[in-house]
Amino acid sequence: MNANLQVRIRHLPRDTVEAGHFELHEALVPLPAAGQVLVQQHFLSLDPYMRKRLADACAGRDPLAPGDVMMGRTVGRVVESRDPAFRAGDTVLGWGGWQRYAAEPAQSLQKVEPVEGGSLSVHLGALGRPGITAWLGVVSVAQLRAGECLVVSSAAGAVGSLAVQMARHIGARVVGIAGGRAKCDAVVGQLGAQACVDYKAPDFAQQLAHATPDGVDVVFENVGAGVLDATLNRMNENGRVAVCGLMGHYHSGDPYGFQNFARVLDRALKVTGFRIDANAPLHAQALGDLRAWFGAGVLRSWETVAQGLEQAPDAFVSMLQGRGQGKTLVQII
Amino acid sequence: MNANLQVRIRHLPRDTVEAGHFELHEALVPLPAAGQVLVQQHFLSLDPYMRKRLADACAGRDPLAPGDVMMGRTVGRVVESRDPAFRAGDTVLGWGGWQRYAAEPAQSLQKVEPVEGGSLSVHLGALGRPGITAWLGVVSVAQLRAGECLVVSSAAGAVGSLAVQMARHIGARVVGIAGGRAKCDAVVGQLGAQACVDYKAPDFAQQLAHATPDGVDVVFENVGAGVLDATLNRMNENGRVAVCGLMGHYHSGDPYGFQNFARVLDRALKVTGFRIDANAPLHAQALGDLRAWFGAGVLRSWETVAQGLEQAPDAFVSMLQGRGQGKTLVQII
Repeated sequence: MNANLQVRIRHLPRDTVEAGHFELHEALVPLPAAGQVLVQQHFLSLDPYMRKRLADACAGRDPLAPGDVMMGRTVGRVVESRDPAFRAGDTVLGWGGWQRYAAEPAQSLQKVEPVEGGSLSVHLGALGRPGITAWLGVVSVAQLRAGECLVVSSAAGAVGSLAVQMARHIGARVVGIAGGRAKCDAVVGQLGAQACVDYKAPDFAQQLAHATPDGVDVVFENVGAGVLDATLNRMNENGRVAVCGLMGHYHSGDPYGFQNFARVLDRALKVTGFRIDANAPLHAQALGDLRAWFGAGVLRSWETVAQGLEQAPDAFVSMLQGRGQGKTLVQII
Repeated sequence: MNANLQVRIRHLPRDTVEAGHFELHEALVPLPAAGQVLVQQHFLSLDPYMRKRLADACAGRDPLAPGDVMMGRTVGRVVESRDPAFRAGDTVLGWGGWQRYAAEPAQSLQKVEPVEGGSLSVHLGALGRPGITAWLGVVSVAQLRAGECLVVSSAAGAVGSLAVQMARHIGARVVGIAGGRAKCDAVVGQLGAQACVDYKAPDFAQQLAHATPDGVDVVFENVGAGVLDATLNRMNENGRVAVCGLMGHYHSGDPYGFQNFARVLDRALKVTGFRIDANAPLHAQALGDLRAWFGAGVLRSWETVAQGLEQAPDAFVSMLQGRGQGKTLVQII
C-alpha cells in the first residue's frame, strides 16, 4: 500500500489564496476504527465555496486550522470497511479531503451506483452536487418552461455549464454570461447556448441587451454584483431569479451596492436564494432526472482535470482565478 | 346642483411636489353621454404612487398634462346613469379624479356593497385597494403563519397599518417601522404591534435588532433603501420578503445601492415584488376576508381626512411628507 500523500493547510489566507498556503505531507495510511471505512480516493472536487471556508477560518468562524488536511468532497472506492453498511470495492462519495486515503465514519459516506463505462468523476459533476444544484435552480426554484429566455452567469462553470445544458433540453432560449471570449465560444459551441456574453467586455450591458431582445424570464445566478445588476434591467414581468451563488461578493471588504433592486417591484420579480443542503428531500428526484438525461446524452460532463494530488494547490488557485472550464477536479490516482 | 369644483394640474413638478403645482377651477357639471354615468364623488384617495405619475408625466412617460383634472381614485354615488348596469343611488368606485362630479364610462366603475353604518371612505381603505394590497402581501405572497415575526415598514401608512392588524389577527409577532416617535407609539398603542422602530433614529439598526431578538421571518416592505437593507440582516433562514412599495427609491436621481443582498443566498430568502393589478383573480377572495375581518372588528379604518376638495393639494403634499397616519383621504362633500 502507498504512503498517504496529503495536502495540508500551511497558513490560512486572509484574502487571495496562493499555492503556498498549502504544503504536501506524507502520512501513514490510517487504520479504520470500528464504524469507520477506509477509502482510496480517486477524484477530489475543487469548488469556489472552499475559498469562503478558508476566509471564515482565518476570521475564526470555521474550525479549519493550519496543519489540517484541507477539506473537500471526493469520490473513491472502499478498501476496508469496519461498518456493515459498506464493503470493499463499493464506490462512495465522502468528505475525505485532499489526501489519497481517508478513514471516514460510515455515516458521512454515501454509496453511489457507478455509471456503466463512465469515469467516477461524474459523481462529482453531472451526477453529483453540481448536477443537483443546477437541477434545483432550473427545475425546482425557477420552474423554467420551454420558450422562455434563461440567463446563466458563470455559464462555463461547474454548475452553470450543467444549467445551460438542462435549459436547452427543456426548450428554453439560453444566454450565458462568462469571462473572456474563449469561454463564451465554448458555452455556445460546446454547450449549445444561443448566445454568451463576456462580462469583462466594456459594453457588457449593451451586449446583454442585444442577446436578449425579448427580455429575460429566468436568471440562474452564480455571480451577483454587477453581472446581476445588469441582468435585472433586462427582466420581463413576473421573472424569476434563482440565486445559487454570489461569487462576485466574496472578494473584498466592501459589499457590492445593488442599484437595480427596484426592478423586483416594477417587474414583479421573484428572487429566491437556494442551497443544495437545505433541499435534501428533492435530491432523489433530481438524481433520477440527472441519470436519465446523462444516459440519453442530454447532459455531458465538462471537466478540467489536474493529474495528481501534488497539483491540487495550483489547480485550486487556477479555478479561483476563473481559468478552467466546467467542473475542476484533481485525479488522485 | 352645485358647480363642479375641480383641482387641475397647473405645472408638472420635476421633483418636489408643492400645493402650487395645482389650481382650483369651477366647471359645469358634465352631462353623461350614452354609456356614461354621472357620479357625485364623496371621498378622494391620496396615494404615494401619484407622485410617480406626476414625475413620469414631467418626463413625457405619462399622458397627464397641465390643465388636466388631477387623477385619483374616488368613491361616490351615482346621480344619473346612461348605462343599464348602474342606477341612481348606487355606490361606486371609480377613477373620477380631483373633482366633485365625474362623468365616467360605465366600464371604469365598480359597484360596491355599502357597509352598514360605515363611512363610504372604507372602500378606499380597509375594504379597498389598501386592504387588498395588504392581504396580497401578508396572506398570498408571504403566507405569514402564527408565531412568526413580521416586520412592516411604513407601518403607520395606509397599507402598512392594515398589514399590521391582519398579521396580529393571524397570530404573528409584529414589529413596525415608522418615522418618528408619535407614529411608532400609535402603531403599538392603536394597531397592536408588539414594537415599532423609528427609522429616523441614529441607532435604527440596533433598535431593530433589539426588537427582533429571534430574527425576522417575513417582511412587508413599503420603503426599501436603507430600511430594507437593515432588515435583511435580521432575516431568518427561509425568510420571505413581500415587496409592496419602494418609497425610499422614488426620491432622487441616484438609485440606492443595496449592500446586504447576499443575505438572499446565505439565508435562503424569497423576495417577491407584487402589484395589486397583476393579482386581479385573487381580489374577490381578499375582499371576502377583509369584509369578514372588518365586520368582526379585527380591522379598523385608520384615516387622516382633509375636509373639502380645496384642501386636496395641501393634504397631498402633507401625505408625501409623511405627515398623517393611515389612509389619507379628502372628503369632497
